[in-house]
Amino acid sequence: MSGFSRRRLIGTAGAVGAAGLGVGAAGGAIARATTAEEAPTALTTVGANTVAFHGEHQAGITTPPQAHGHLIAFDLAPGAGRKEATALLRRWSGLAAELMAGRPVAADDTGVALDAGPSSLTVTFGFGRTFFDRTDLVARRPPGLDPLPAFSADRLDTRRSNGDLWVQIGADDGLVAFHALRAVQRAAGATARVRWQMTGFNRSPGATERPMTTRNLMGQVDGTNNPKPSDPDFDQRIFVPPSDAGTGTGTDGGTGTGTDAGTGGGGGDFEWLVGGSYAVVRRIRMLLDDWEGLRLAEQERIIGRRKSDGGPLTGGGETEKLALDRIGADGKPVIPANAHARISAPEQNGGAAMLRRPFSYHDGIGADGVPDAGLLFICWQADPLRGFVPVQRKLDRGDALSPFVRHESSGLFAVPGGAAKGEYVGQRLLEP
Amino acid sequence: MSGFSRRRLIGTAGAVGAAGLGVGAAGGAIARATTAEEAPTALTTVGANTVAFHGEHQAGITTPPQAHGHLIAFDLAPGAGRKEATALLRRWSGLAAELMAGRPVAADDTGVALDAGPSSLTVTFGFGRTFFDRTDLVARRPPGLDPLPAFSADRLDTRRSNGDLWVQIGADDGLVAFHALRAVQRAAGATARVRWQMTGFNRSPGATERPMTTRNLMGQVDGTNNPKPSDPDFDQRIFVPPSDAGTGTGTDGGTGTGTDAGTGGGGGDFEWLVGGSYAVVRRIRMLLDDWEGLRLAEQERIIGRRKSDGGPLTGGGETEKLALDRIGADGKPVIPANAHARISAPEQNGGAAMLRRPFSYHDGIGADGVPDAGLLFICWQADPLRGFVPVQRKLDRGDALSPFVRHESSGLFAVPGGAAKGEYVGQRLLEP
Repeated sequence: MSGFSRRRLIGTAGAVGAAGLGVGAAGGAIARATTAEEAPTALTTVGANTVAFHGEHQAGITTPPQAHGHLIAFDLAPGAGRKEATALLRRWSGLAAELMAGRPVAADDTGVALDAGPSSLTVTFGFGRTFFDRTDLVARRPPGLDPLPAFSADRLDTRRSNGDLWVQIGADDGLVAFHALRAVQRAAGATARVRWQMTGFNRSPGATERPMTTRNLMGQVDGTNNPKPSDPDFDQRIFVPPSDAGTGTGTDGGTGTGTDAGTGGGGGDFEWLVGGSYAVVRRIRMLLDDWEGLRLAEQERIIGRRKSDGGPLTGGGETEKLALDRIGADGKPVIPANAHARISAPEQNGGAAMLRRPFSYHDGIGADGVPDAGLLFICWQADPLRGFVPVQRKLDRGDALSPFVRHESSGLFAVPGGAAKGEYVGQRLLEP
Repeated sequence: MSGFSRRRLIGTAGAVGAAGLGVGAAGGAIARATTAEEAPTALTTVGANTVAFHGEHQAGITTPPQAHGHLIAFDLAPGAGRKEATALLRRWSGLAAELMAGRPVAADDTGVALDAGPSSLTVTFGFGRTFFDRTDLVARRPPGLDPLPAFSADRLDTRRSNGDLWVQIGADDGLVAFHALRAVQRAAGATARVRWQMTGFNRSPGATERPMTTRNLMGQVDGTNNPKPSDPDFDQRIFVPPSDAGTGTGTDGGTGTGTDAGTGGGGGDFEWLVGGSYAVVRRIRMLLDDWEGLRLAEQERIIGRRKSDGGPLTGGGETEKLALDRIGADGKPVIPANAHARISAPEQNGGAAMLRRPFSYHDGIGADGVPDAGLLFICWQADPLRGFVPVQRKLDRGDALSPFVRHESSGLFAVPGGAAKGEYVGQRLLEP
């Protein structure tokens, strides 16, 4: 299949991409195909953009959110253990590297991505808590994978939650994303079975001038308070640092359940997770009929920010700090005590930081007759007990937004660091 | 809400779009926002592109396929009749004109499209057969709306088929498309209830150099044989001409069921449909696990074209004519007798012509454990009995592709011509 025009299309993009990820320091920039004479006239950077597979961290974390996303969780098949899982991660890594570089793949490829460039495709792999039982690697399961606490607003469907393995796919073209999804699924072969799969979307490149934040299906600007890769403590908050990994991530987080995470003795060996991160995945349904029935001013009081531009109700633009103690003419805080922005503000949560990188989802009309739509919330952090958990605990108690959302599924995955050249993702766990 | 930055974003695009549709003659070109100083730096033509609402034909027929699509069918609510339907079509037309031009909409707008330009949004309205019963307009129901014949391969879900009213939404941004969907649904108010809703996608602008055709989820180039707006008989084949409309569309098509379509006497008054078209909508599930299990050569024999570039197996590029009588070394036709491309070729179907303008769909894993994915097939023609029906009859009998697809729902809608300024879509039917 070497005659496929796709090979021509991507030009030298693969070589450019191989220059390294380095995303953390570079502010989320992605490599671009720069050899103009290789690019056909009508193929813009939308198609030609590549994200490097190899690097310190996996792609798809600090990569700018793509227009299309798929999340897919697998369980190892009966009879499959560490040996089969190792072979699978090796296959998947090889596949992801080829697809992300836009290189031709196997002769039995479906062809769905032909004609298109890689379109900023990323494929990201993670391990769920149960993976370590199935592969006899419990001693190396980090405490950060301890089950999330239950929240009162949870309405979780366990069949669509967690899983042994998790793959996040993103691309700026819907067919490229679908192609990767099918390729990942087919490469699972007899080793792993699909547990659940979800599809989401974000703004298309070029549809808006707003570079960093998007809107969700409630119409709210989303992602304003995200830590920036240029923040001095960004890497430390988002990626697992050597010291934490060595001593057991999260053991200082006050969980009280850390004893079952290590070897039972002096803590486990979690060095394999250095440079990795934890992904918390929540399918958050939005009760849009109820929400849209509110007046604009009511919606803005619930959020604490203006809908028009995301700026705080206390004034200023989107990135202006919330004036949380400002009192209005009515003697009440301008940003109400239960406003979503107040409760989730980092300064109200001991500096808890997570990198939110969601997709919206819309699966038509649900069985209950109202839209099955909302947010595939994905957040990244070096330690869930210092990221998602404390913030969600506070939101669960007093967020004015709670009546309008419903957490319908939940996943927690340890996402290893990026693979070096010649390495596959997870190798340091599976073949130390 | 006039302070929304979206107003600024779209600049003078509305005025440009209002210059007129004229899509048929212009080869599907769409108006572009040309005032550079009005456009913010990062907003490319993806966001700024507008399609005109007013014109001879409705938008969304010859408009280049957008990256995101929604199809939604409504039934009139109990108690709602012609008066309520008239008010609804008036509301919908006003809404569509504003949204497509990127102008601010009602104060209770959801805000989901804020920050983005109109992104080539189109909103297209059609009437199903049952609409005419509900509004006491049976005398004006054209014979082209006679029920489609049953096909042996049909596995139709009637709850997801047909409907009194049909709306097609397309845009190059997923949030803009979703925003329009919700706005259309909310504007239905108590007059109409959602019957079914489906979501699809196509390539993103800039992801590929291939301008006219896309690929479907089987990896096949799709749309090669589509009539071109530059064809001399394009308008006549796709849009209902005055003579046909006056005498009763389709009465010469050999249906045998034409008698219940008119007034029972000398045919009805179908002048209202001049400049309109018929949309046949089929949800065609692809049995991807089976299809992907075939080798490339087998897939290509089933289609009759190369997967790589869509060219015929008898040689030449995508637009090369099929050499249907070419015999191979094995003494058999190079393009097999049951190849999909042979059976659906216009020259094998008395020149039957339809304009195919589909979206792919992917709704995850179906209840049966295999992908709920395939094609939201939409084809446009002046007369279904000279477009979709004869071709589908032939395919139903002998298409080698049949074992790999399943028609799961079906709709047939009469889509009126475009509204003139000051008019609403369907006015010539509802208030002649």
